[in-house]
Amino acid sequence: MRMYDIILKKRNGGELSDEEIKYFVEGYTHGQIPDYQASALMMAVYFRGMSSFETATLTKYMAQSGDMVDLSSIPGIKVDKHSTGGVGDKTTMVVAPIVASCGVPVAKMSGRGLGHTGGTLDKLESIPGFSTTISSERFVDIVKRIGLCIIGQTANLAPADKKLYALRDVTATVDNISLIAASIMSKKIAAGSDAILLDVKTGSGAFMKTIEDSIRLAQEMVAIGEHAGRKTVALITDMDKPLGKAIGNSLEVAEAVDTLNSHGPSDFTEICIHLAANMLYLAQKGSLEECMHLARQALASGAALEKFREMVISQGGDVTVIDKTALFRKAPISHVVKAKGSGWISSMNTEQCGIASVVLGAGRESKEDMIDHSAGIVLEVKPGDWVNEGDPLAVLYTSRENSVETAENILRKAISTSSERPPKKASIYARVSRDKVEMF
Amino acid sequence: MRMYDIILKKRNGGELSDEEIKYFVEGYTHGQIPDYQASALMMAVYFRGMSSFETATLTKYMAQSGDMVDLSSIPGIKVDKHSTGGVGDKTTMVVAPIVASCGVPVAKMSGRGLGHTGGTLDKLESIPGFSTTISSERFVDIVKRIGLCIIGQTANLAPADKKLYALRDVTATVDNISLIAASIMSKKIAAGSDAILLDVKTGSGAFMKTIEDSIRLAQEMVAIGEHAGRKTVALITDMDKPLGKAIGNSLEVAEAVDTLNSHGPSDFTEICIHLAANMLYLAQKGSLEECMHLARQALASGAALEKFREMVISQGGDVTVIDKTALFRKAPISHVVKAKGSGWISSMNTEQCGIASVVLGAGRESKEDMIDHSAGIVLEVKPGDWVNEGDPLAVLYTSRENSVETAENILRKAISTSSERPPKKASIYARVSRDKVEMF
Repeated sequence: MRMYDIILKKRNGGELSDEEIKYFVEGYTHGQIPDYQASALMMAVYFRGMSSFETATLTKYMAQSGDMVDLSSIPGIKVDKHSTGGVGDKTTMVVAPIVASCGVPVAKMSGRGLGHTGGTLDKLESIPGFSTTISSERFVDIVKRIGLCIIGQTANLAPADKKLYALRDVTATVDNISLIAASIMSKKIAAGSDAILLDVKTGSGAFMKTIEDSIRLAQEMVAIGEHAGRKTVALITDMDKPLGKAIGNSLEVAEAVDTLNSHGPSDFTEICIHLAANMLYLAQKGSLEECMHLARQALASGAALEKFREMVISQGGDVTVIDKTALFRKAPISHVVKAKGSGWISSMNTEQCGIASVVLGAGRESKEDMIDHSAGIVLEVKPGDWVNEGDPLAVLYTSRENSVETAENILRKAISTSSERPPKKASIYARVSRDKVEMF
Repeated sequence: MRMYDIILKKRNGGELSDEEIKYFVEGYTHGQIPDYQASALMMAVYFRGMSSFETATLTKYMAQSGDMVDLSSIPGIKVDKHSTGGVGDKTTMVVAPIVASCGVPVAKMSGRGLGHTGGTLDKLESIPGFSTTISSERFVDIVKRIGLCIIGQTANLAPADKKLYALRDVTATVDNISLIAASIMSKKIAAGSDAILLDVKTGSGAFMKTIEDSIRLAQEMVAIGEHAGRKTVALITDMDKPLGKAIGNSLEVAEAVDTLNSHGPSDFTEICIHLAANMLYLAQKGSLEECMHLARQALASGAALEKFREMVISQGGDVTVIDKTALFRKAPISHVVKAKGSGWISSMNTEQCGIASVVLGAGRESKEDMIDHSAGIVLEVKPGDWVNEGDPLAVLYTSRENSVETAENILRKAISTSSERPPKKASIYARVSRDKVEMF
């Protein structure tokens, strides 16, 4: 077999066989196939696409390129969750405790933030002492004991995907739905859970800007998951405005804790209930309706909050900041952004809101950047709200005095006002499962 | 400027600017742009194509990436010739002497054979002592003195093309007409002649298998040449059968000498006259009709043969083998392939004829292979001939005893016979100039 022939076949619109995809993934991972042949293949895939068979097969061999996490010693149906990323997305910190408190084990590997999107690991690490680098053995032990543990990906999880993604990132071959789906799902499949709930974000703060593209991505991922024998469901949720009001690491933990205390923003709480219910459904805890009820109960009873506290303690975190979030270290500078006129908040460019928070120190522009856990933005208004001149739009938190003006300018440009009341928008658009797409 | 944005622009169907193409060619040649970005761009070009502007601009910067040969000290209009390559293509050895003997200087850089096609350099080197590695100064001196010199490309001629072609060769991005045209023309433009005659081969032994594709390639190359200020004309000539009867290096020199002696195969002679006449026309020696007459005279008078002898002497070759071609070293083994039945020769798979000659030792399968100058094939029949059982089809010459059977099998399969007389086919199909395509 020759890589040249594989490139030629795809370039000419052919369907690659299992053997050919295996040859490519293994050869590329081990350095026998050079980057320049892999990038030519990726560009041919960009133009020709991949069949469901090809996408599932690429995913399979990328998943198998490194460690396959073994969760079989944990009893029950293990359900994983993946969000395609957004601004203010702190759902994992609410959803995972709800699910775990209902008796469904959650052994989750999360990622870090990059660019305008945040990452669950960075958020959890704003809790003093909280460790996300835990050995596989201890990870499994914690899940067995308390039903919940969230750590970073092990170094050798789907290394083929890691190498190929880095190449695609510099050769303009990232934005192909099959390749995106294969990249995400290879890590989820390697991570070992029995079922997977996907939270596909859509809108100005998401990678997928339209509902149609988000549904296509969701369908591809669900097909891959099912092909690999994992029950998979996707929700298409809104990222046309930041999720909740807090953007930034300890600010988001505080909002998640508020939500676990039943005092969170209502739209955010509703999305968390839906995500948790779908995970419970995948774990066969009942009908979707029954699972919605279970999720609401777990919040209302305080069971989910208690599970979150247990997790923080198990992973070495200081639980006093959870019990009293005012104890989180405060950013030395806070600055209120006030409305310059009156009107309805009509829309928010969510990506720009994320960028403003990065400027304040809450995120990373490149992988090596340090994060300021106390920095970020708390929005005082959301689309659909009325503001009068002088009303606070947001509070900026930072340690970088010279970042305030830039961040304020970015944020002001991101927020549009109108003299007309904007129509109310949904926060969940659709549910995609193996055989159907249900629009909400 | 970032290479990423250049790839993205081409991938999305945009037209690259002069600055962007310059940035790519210079950066790639000097190693600042890695192979994996260049191959992704080439694949995007494969799918999106290039405009005439982009193709001409790419050619310009590839030509300028190394030495630009300066022929200005040679008086007169210097005319170059390029063939896209074929089997038995010994035209340069006849055409260049005709043109030079009519007073038009020919300072030509030729290539070597690879795969099923031969190269003029290898053929000339079958003349004992003949040198094709001559300094630029001596090259120009010889052309000034006798009007003709044929050497190998200097090492630093269009290095960007050399590097990019090697990359395209392993990433399935060779067969794009704009890229092929840019590759050929970058070397011709760097080689410094004032005008360029292109011999675009078409048919089973050529890179372009159809007349339509050959005309498209010719049009792209003519446009590039004219854009660079070089008068350029292309003839589309037949490569659906080997050219002449001899395939293999000294065998082809002998056939060229026969042709210069007015005893060559008539179809081959006719193609040489047309090519030479078009070169004379580009050098403004008169109308095409007048130039045809000049070319015929140069052959008939012996002036072209005398010019060839002068060139051989100037380049250190032993002219006794030219004066008596029977003095060429003979291959130790000769084997007659006889017809197994009677019928009309209906077609010849010309690429396979070339491969049979490579098996006998006349060519190279990879760049490092040594050539046996005495090896090859002399065809005794051509399409349109009638054969009876036992008639000789061809004589094989080799030093490799164990190659005879393989070569005979390949050659037999390449020759088709029929009970019906095949229609006579033209040897020249079209002439492509700046503003028109004339079909013959």
